Amino acid sequence: MTHSQRRDKLKAQISAAGLDAMLVTDLINVRYLSGFSGSNGALLVFADDREAVLATDGRYRTQAAQQAPDLEVAIERAVGRHLTGRAAADGVRKLGFESHVVTVDGLDALAAALADTDTELVRASGTVEALREVKDAGELALLRLACEAADAALTDLVGRGGLRPGRTEREVGRELEALMLDHGADAVSFETIVAAGPNSAIPHHRPTDAVLATGDFVKIDFGALVAGYHSDMTRTFVLGKPADWQLEIYQLVAEAQRAGREALRPGAELREVDAAARRLIADAGYADNFGHGLGHGVGLQIHEAPGIAATSAGTLLAGSVVTVEPGVYLPGRGGVRIEDTLAVPSEISAPSKTAGQTPELLTRFPKELAVL
Amino acid sequence: MTHSQRRDKLKAQISAAGLDAMLVTDLINVRYLSGFSGSNGALLVFADDREAVLATDGRYRTQAAQQAPDLEVAIERAVGRHLTGRAAADGVRKLGFESHVVTVDGLDALAAALADTDTELVRASGTVEALREVKDAGELALLRLACEAADAALTDLVGRGGLRPGRTEREVGRELEALMLDHGADAVSFETIVAAGPNSAIPHHRPTDAVLATGDFVKIDFGALVAGYHSDMTRTFVLGKPADWQLEIYQLVAEAQRAGREALRPGAELREVDAAARRLIADAGYADNFGHGLGHGVGLQIHEAPGIAATSAGTLLAGSVVTVEPGVYLPGRGGVRIEDTLAVPSEISAPSKTAGQTPELLTRFPKELAVL
Repeated sequence: MTHSQRRDKLKAQISAAGLDAMLVTDLINVRYLSGFSGSNGALLVFADDREAVLATDGRYRTQAAQQAPDLEVAIERAVGRHLTGRAAADGVRKLGFESHVVTVDGLDALAAALADTDTELVRASGTVEALREVKDAGELALLRLACEAADAALTDLVGRGGLRPGRTEREVGRELEALMLDHGADAVSFETIVAAGPNSAIPHHRPTDAVLATGDFVKIDFGALVAGYHSDMTRTFVLGKPADWQLEIYQLVAEAQRAGREALRPGAELREVDAAARRLIADAGYADNFGHGLGHGVGLQIHEAPGIAATSAGTLLAGSVVTVEPGVYLPGRGGVRIEDTLAVPSEISAPSKTAGQTPELLTRFPKELAVL
Repeated sequence: MTHSQRRDKLKAQISAAGLDAMLVTDLINVRYLSGFSGSNGALLVFADDREAVLATDGRYRTQAAQQAPDLEVAIERAVGRHLTGRAAADGVRKLGFESHVVTVDGLDALAAALADTDTELVRASGTVEALREVKDAGELALLRLACEAADAALTDLVGRGGLRPGRTEREVGRELEALMLDHGADAVSFETIVAAGPNSAIPHHRPTDAVLATGDFVKIDFGALVAGYHSDMTRTFVLGKPADWQLEIYQLVAEAQRAGREALRPGAELREVDAAARRLIADAGYADNFGHGLGHGVGLQIHEAPGIAATSAGTLLAGSVVTVEPGVYLPGRGGVRIEDTLAVPSEISAPSKTAGQTPELLTRFPKELAVL
């Protein structure tokens, strides 16, 4: 789908909401709708067939022209204020703005640009995010590339013996990050989590100089960034022969993760997807050791809609891309998390008619307990 | 200065503004005032001598206790809403909030927590940022470490012949980033800019597979992160014998940069600091080739107060840490930027009484034109 086609979808939403135009100030949303990826920008999208206007400052003149060649580019530092004034000048009466993004002070600045006009600012939160929840074919292709880079990097790391006793968490993290770049990532998605031994019981542990030791769980949560799209994967390894308690929680988390994946059906209640995995963990007596949600959407942001948790409202959309990442964490001992990024079936993601019935696994590194 | 002493400074500001307490929701400000560095948190600071309350969610229970051992920690996902309710329950009548950070929708959520109470939300923007503008001794020590890591990395890169014709911008950027980690950085401050040849004329260029060639300018803008504090430095090199036009603009930028550094006096008008450098560039006929501000504050954020530009209001504060980074960019040919991070003199930053009269240069890599 072209950026123009995405804007057409937004136009339909704007019209349906009774607005004449929408001011998009969230930078990720600006990128989604225009292709422009600079650090200062805003987009004015009209409900009618007038083309959108992109605003950015002088640093990005060349970049904006390259990334959004189909759009008029206004060079102005105060991008939101400028486009608000532009909307009024162009006869917009009801101008939607992203009330979940614009700050209280920022709204004042926008309103000031409307003094002595008939234009009214109207809240329109989450409109573009809702469009972004369903990935188009181009996005899915980039998400596949990001996940492939991550898969290749972990395969390479394990193949070269990178997860051996004596190394530090930090060394392992740095090597894995370098390998992602070697395998085609533009950058790292987020700071790699490498958590060895008792540290693996900390869900979000930053790598330290802690040394990997025989008998340890080593939990690795990492992602690659390709053309703005993220991957997200967690694998947990055991160094040496696993103890019974390690086998027990690993198998439990693996079963819960499988149940979560199998619950990924278009139209499924999000809280039911969470429950499908959480139930197994709770039944085994570990309810208190799984303190986070089951998953989240992945795309231009590492965490985006939908959230998949016990408290989530709504249903899973065909064509969304989400993680499934249950964990069991035993404080002071160790923990296991297994996480994949998957595409929920839709017409564009189905390689064949039958394959369209199950989610597409984007992170393909094996999940069997690897004893290193 | 301890976090508690920083909160005491804020208490004085809160009292002076006629507030009973302040809700801090900006995560950098929360970190500055409490030490807590998680990705979800808020802080309630009372004007009177009651101790502050930190809120975060269950993922950060252990981390919050470790990083902010002197504070009560409330475990709650909706941190701002929770602390707003807490303020009302604790008898706060006027509760300041960060109106430059809280979104329009976010304010609704805070207000909802105050239904049926006498507590009023009052705008208080930039209060903590103003405190952060003056660095204390502990912050300055960390800024020095960050700048030293960057200096050491660039010295190492150049010493090993890392800037040689035939390499790509991307290779150079990756090596420099790895060297920063080797030299003590926790992470990279921002994506390293390596811009060779005509790309050096683009102020913010992302490294590509463009190959460094003899005769090229190579502009490198990079920073290291140490314990949350950033460094920021730009150096421009020439590969081989410089052409006359290269010598001309290099010397011009170097002179302008020196003039900018020498203008860093406590109490100086910010726009006068900018003008001190810009005047030289304009007088040489390159006014249109220096399209950005002269500098910015550096601390827990890579860009923070003050901005130093032609349009800046206010004066330079003793103890602030800022960049001075003029540039001249000739589209299609090449460009030069020279940037240092410096500490504006104050009692704490002066190693001796005489040294206290000039700014402390934190980024010490040489600025003479290096012909590689």
